[in-house]
Order: sequence, then structure tokens, then C-alpha cells
Amino acid sequence: MKILLTGFDPFGGDKVNPAYEAVKLLPKNIAGADIVTIEIPTVYQKSGEAVEKGIRQFQPDVVICIGQAGGRSGITVEMVAVNIADFRIADNEGNQPLNQSILEDGENAYFATVPVKAMVENIKKHGIPARISYTAGTFVCNDVLYELLYMISKKYPKIKGGFIHVPFAPEQVLERPDGTASMPVETSAKALEHAIEAVVREESK
Amino acid sequence: MKILLTGFDPFGGDKVNPAYEAVKLLPKNIAGADIVTIEIPTVYQKSGEAVEKGIRQFQPDVVICIGQAGGRSGITVEMVAVNIADFRIADNEGNQPLNQSILEDGENAYFATVPVKAMVENIKKHGIPARISYTAGTFVCNDVLYELLYMISKKYPKIKGGFIHVPFAPEQVLERPDGTASMPVETSAKALEHAIEAVVREESK
Amino acid sequence: MKILLTGFDPFGGDKVNPAYEAVKLLPKNIAGADIVTIEIPTVYQKSGEAVEKGIRQFQPDVVICIGQAGGRSGITVEMVAVNIADFRIADNEGNQPLNQSILEDGENAYFATVPVKAMVENIKKHGIPARISYTAGTFVCNDVLYELLYMISKKYPKIKGGFIHVPFAPEQVLERPDGTASMPVETSAKALEHAIEAVVREESK
Amino acid sequence: MKILLTGFDPFGGDKVNPAYEAVKLLPKNIAGADIVTIEIPTVYQKSGEAVEKGIRQFQPDVVICIGQAGGRSGITVEMVAVNIADFRIADNEGNQPLNQSILEDGENAYFATVPVKAMVENIKKHGIPARISYTAGTFVCNDVLYELLYMISKKYPKIKGGFIHVPFAPEQVLERPDGTASMPVETSAKALEHAIEAVVREESK
Repeated sequence: MKILLTGFDPFGGDKVNPAYEAVKLLPKNIAGADIVTIEIPTVYQKSGEAVEKGIRQFQPDVVICIGQAGGRSGITVEMVAVNIADFRIADNEGNQPLNQSILEDGENAYFATVPVKAMVENIKKHGIPARISYTAGTFVCNDVLYELLYMISKKYPKIKGGFIHVPFAPEQVLERPDGTASMPVETSAKALEHAIEAVVREESK
Repeated sequence: MKILLTGFDPFGGDKVNPAYEAVKLLPKNIAGADIVTIEIPTVYQKSGEAVEKGIRQFQPDVVICIGQAGGRSGITVEMVAVNIADFRIADNEGNQPLNQSILEDGENAYFATVPVKAMVENIKKHGIPARISYTAGTFVCNDVLYELLYMISKKYPKIKGGFIHVPFAPEQVLERPDGTASMPVETSAKALEHAIEAVVREESK
Repeated sequence: MKILLTGFDPFGGDKVNPAYEAVKLLPKNIAGADIVTIEIPTVYQKSGEAVEKGIRQFQPDVVICIGQAGGRSGITVEMVAVNIADFRIADNEGNQPLNQSILEDGENAYFATVPVKAMVENIKKHGIPARISYTAGTFVCNDVLYELLYMISKKYPKIKGGFIHVPFAPEQVLERPDGTASMPVETSAKALEHAIEAVVREESK
Repeated sequence: MKILLTGFDPFGGDKVNPAYEAVKLLPKNIAGADIVTIEIPTVYQKSGEAVEKGIRQFQPDVVICIGQAGGRSGITVEMVAVNIADFRIADNEGNQPLNQSILEDGENAYFATVPVKAMVENIKKHGIPARISYTAGTFVCNDVLYELLYMISKKYPKIKGGFIHVPFAPEQVLERPDGTASMPVETSAKALEHAIEAVVREESK
């Protein structure tokens, strides 16, 4: 089994993105599956193109995109992507779509095809807080998950797709309001590893 | 320089106390200072007796008690202990003092004599969220800090005293409400180390 | 114009549901539109049947369901309902569907057809905190919105449908954890009124 | 019985201060006690002078200062004022004392002499969230409570003194981060009324 993981580059004024930092810490093989990783741009629709380029290059069985969910205190595995782009801030190339469809011929929403519940349970089993999320927002994270699941449904029906959000890294919250949640990148990386173990186990059944 | 660190045993239904777990991870020497550690009971006033026993045994220059602040997302270095015991839950021996003075002949409050601001700054400089706190609550954490500072003011004027609160460990929040903050014990231990570095540096001036 | 508003009965151990309490405070006419209201049961799928019964009885132009979102601090106007029922607690008749589709022949998701952004803006313009939400959860609130939008798309294409979540009433949080958000029912009712004004204005264009 | 209430003027960029707005809504007589009110400046030490001027003018039996605690979700009745001024932002005349004593010859801390627990209980009994707080911060709110309790202990031993914090008003949080708590000024005013009823009842015993 081959699993492609993607992490976004930094955005919104932060110097790091804990998503890609965590991805970089992962071993090359998890539970018997080969892990390949790419960094993708925090740019509307270009992120989806970068994912497709990765799919063509690596021919993975599973694709999981990783992003930062600033303010969330635990790992969140996303269940749903919606056909809405409504950016509160501009992306890294200055795009700021407001209340518009991502893909005109797409479904209103797609559901992740990775085993979301098993992933959450395995992360928690290893002592790291996690839960299912039913909204990936309306920024580039939702955009890339939507585009991934769209292309899976249209062109790559054998690939499983999903998305995992990680909290801010601790150094990102030093100047943010008191009480803003964070998680060390090493802990987020461990959580990703346990999520992937669950994917391998469920897909090997 | 010799520094005595104390950590509480578990309470309130939890199986671990991240305070003592973090203390156990510390090296025996930090920035040239010898570190000695004891576990103390989460019991009203007995915690203070255990601290005094440690002072007599180890003859430290600095005493810092470490406790758990469930719900806080970063490290908090306490500035103040007040002469109030008002326990929301019973301690580990069933005591539940309500709205009463800890020591009849004590001041209304004592201020920590360790360099609180420098400790917070050095923790943050190393990328871990921290802030000064002006309330250690009204449970055993405040009790032990109050008793420590009282005995310092009455009997051990050369000792510096303080208190550091650490968040829940991640495994403690798995069944708590979504969004409850936590910090890995390894990260809390790193923060304690950086706090102690600041104490050594300031006290060596 | 005729607008049907629904509010749920209490659930989860609470004695009141601020949603229906707020609905009951509304005037019979808002911005020229007639307001009719019904209480619906917090029961899987029966809530949808109750809404359809109301549609048949009152022949409304707009249907807005109102529910409680415990823990949210402001008014949230929902944009999306997903075809997932995954109940954390049992409903008022003991049903607890887990990770299942609500309607086999429904879309993955439906979008609200009321003017969500204009509703949020008009609530905020009158000084009450509000925002768009992209998840109505996976309990009866999402269920009833999903069923409403499904029946609109299949059978009642001229009706506009939506959902507004209100916070806990203050008396509901007295014994909940410190910091649990609430809003007086009178304030929630004012917010509903301003949301409806926006609906009337936009639909009259 | 005569009760003097004080409320601060707006600060920190806000156009209103919900503390004084709530004070203005109170009746002239509560539970048989005469209520007199003054607005005081959000200025270090000048706020204390304004309170003393009010004491001389009105000769009250009880003085309760009211302030805004941005971010808190319920009413908090303060138990303690500490001899520390450490301003995160400048006050309304540009003063920003850092980590300094308010009054050189004062105690480390003073405890409120109004019946704090009874006040909290009576607010909650009427359905409004409230709790005791053991820190009034280190800004002007703590400063004025400290100076009030200092002057009571030195010069006005028959007067009872206290402090109540109210949340942001809803219109203050519209542009603040999602989830920032607020309470309508009318609800805060009701809470103040119930707190004062408890004071009158306890002091009349």
C-alpha cells in the first residue's frame, strides 16, 4: 500500500505550518505502507492541482491532506467537504473567493472515503485528543479536500481520500490571546502515524 | 545552588498528575543547580508539612511546587497565594474546607519570591506558551504555595519560593469535553527546565 | 409572505429549549410577513414529519427551524445540512442512529435557501453576535434541516428553507462548567426577528 | 442603608463600558436601600480618588465598584485585591505601571468585605450565571478595589467594600474573535440588582 500525504506551506502571517512540519517528521513506512509526502501551496485551486500532480507521480492507494486548524485543541479528522469557497483572508496568491462554488459540476458535498471513525479511535487509543469534524471550513483546507474527493469520484475511483487538521504549534500561540490551544508538532506527527495505522488496518481487511 | 521541586499525587479521579510526571522527567542538574524532587500528597495542610520536611532534609536555596491546572492551555507561573481555603471537591483524605483561613496568623496573601516574569519569558523564548497567573485557586495548590511562602517569611528567609501550574496531560482530556486544553508531559517538563534556568540566572546575579 | 418557524421541545435533561422559548416571544407579524409557529419533537425523522405537517397546514413561503446549540456564544445561521445521522446522545424517544444516512436517495448535502449572509449581517447590525455556521452537527438539528431541504428540493420548490441555532439560555448554564456561554431568550428572540427581517427584505426584491 | 455604586468610563478602544451602562439602569432604591451612582475614570489611582470623593459626598454604608471583564461569560464577584499594578495596556491618561506596588504601606492583599458568596448565590438563584473570582487582574479594576479596601481598613472601618465584574456587552464582541462571550447590559443590571439585594439582606441581619 502506498499513501500520499500532503502538507500546506505557511499562510496568514505565520512562519511555519504545523501540518507540513508534522508530515516531515513521519517515517517512510507506517504499518507496512509506503509513505510519500509533498508540500502544496496554500492557494485556491492550485492546491488541488498539486495534489493531482502528486497522484499522477506516485500512484498512491490513499491520499490524506493535512492542514492547520488554528484554535482547535485536538486532532480533527474531517468527514465532509462542501462546494463552497468563502475566504475570510486572502490565500498566498491574494485570491479571496466569497461565497462561490468550487466546481460547478460537483456535488454539494463529498464525504471522506478513509475510515474516519477508526482513525479517531486509534489516535485516542494512543493518548492524543482527537475527534471527528463535520466542517473543514471554507478556506483552502476545505477546497483541497473537496477537489480531492471530486477527482476521486470522477477519475480515480480506487483511491481513498481524507483530510486531517492539526492544531497550532506552541510557538505560534505565544503572541496570540491567552488560552489559544496548541499541540507540539511531534505530538501531531504521532497522531498522524496512528491515524495512518488505522487506515492501513481497515483497508487491508 | 540547590532547588527542591515538589509534585502532587493524582486527585479528583485522574490516574496521573502531570505535575509530578513532569518533575520526574527533569535532569538532576539544570544550569549548574542541583535538582531534588519529592512527591507530596494532595491533602490540605499535609502538603505543606511534606514541603517543610523536604526543606529540612535537602536544605534547598529555592523551592518550587508544581501542580496541575486543569483547563489552562499553557504554563502558568503563580504570583500570589491567598489565605483562603475553599475546596470545590474533597482532597485525597476527604477534607473540604469552605471559605476559611489557612493560617490564622498569616498575611492575607504572599507573593512568590522567585523571579516570575523572567521564568515566563524564558519559557516563551523556548517556544512554549506561558503567562503569569494571579490566582492559584483556592484548593491544595494555593494552600501549599501559601504555606511555603508563610514558612519562608517566618523561618527560612533565605529560601526563594514559587509555584508553577502545568496543563492536563493529553490522555486526561480524552473523555473530557471537546476543546479541553492539554500539553504533553514532555513539553511541560521542558517548560519547567526553562523556568528553572531563569531562576538560576536571576539568583546568581 | 408567510413564514413558518419551528422550535424543538427540551432534550438531554434540560427543562427548557431556548429555541422554542425564543420562537414563542416573536410577534405575529415581522416586516409585513405573517409568522406562524409550531413546536416539533426532538426525535429522529419525526421532527421532519412534523415540519411537513406544518407546511401542509400553513402553506408557508419560508420555513425556518430553530434549535439550541449548547456551547456556542452567538447566533449561528446554518448554511449546510449533511446526509449523516450520528447521535452522541439518544433523542427523546430513545433513538440513537450512528453514522448512517438520513435519506437513501438524498444528496450528500443541501444548502440553505434562505439568504444566510444577509440574515447574519442584519442580526449583527442590531448589536447581537452572529455568524454563519457550516455544520449543524449530526443530531436532530441537522436531521430536520436536511429533511426540510430534501422535501423542498423534491416537492416544494417554491419554499425557502433554513435553520438558526441559538445559545443556551442563562439558566441552563448555572450548573455547567464555568465559562459555558449563554444568551437570554429575549435577546435570541430579537436576533430571530432581525434574521426574519432580512429574509423578508431579500425575498421581496 | 445607602449604597454607592461606581462604574468606569470606556477604555481600550471601546465606545461603551458595560459596567457603567448597567449601573445607569439600576433603580434608585433596591430592597429598601438607597442607591447612588458615580462614573469614575479608568485611570490609575485617580479612580481611587474618585471613589473617596464619592464616599465623602454620599456617606454610604456600602461601596461596590463595577467593572468590565472582557472575555468572562458570567458575572464575577471579586474576593481579593492585590497590591500589584501591572498594566497590559495604558489607562485613559497613558499610565502603564509595570509590576509595581499600588500603595507602599498597604497589605499584600485585602479581601472584599461584602458578602461575596451570598451575592453570587442570589444572582444564580435568579437564573443568571455568576461565580466568585479570586483575581480582579492587575489593571485599574484591581487598583480601585485595592484602594477602596485600603481606605476602608485605614479610615472608614464601618463601610463594606466590594467589586463586581460584568462581561462585554454584545455589541462589543461583533468584531472580536468568534466565541468571545458577552451579556446584554440589561441582564448585567439585573444581576447587579440581585447582588445588592443579598448585600442588604446580609447586612441587615
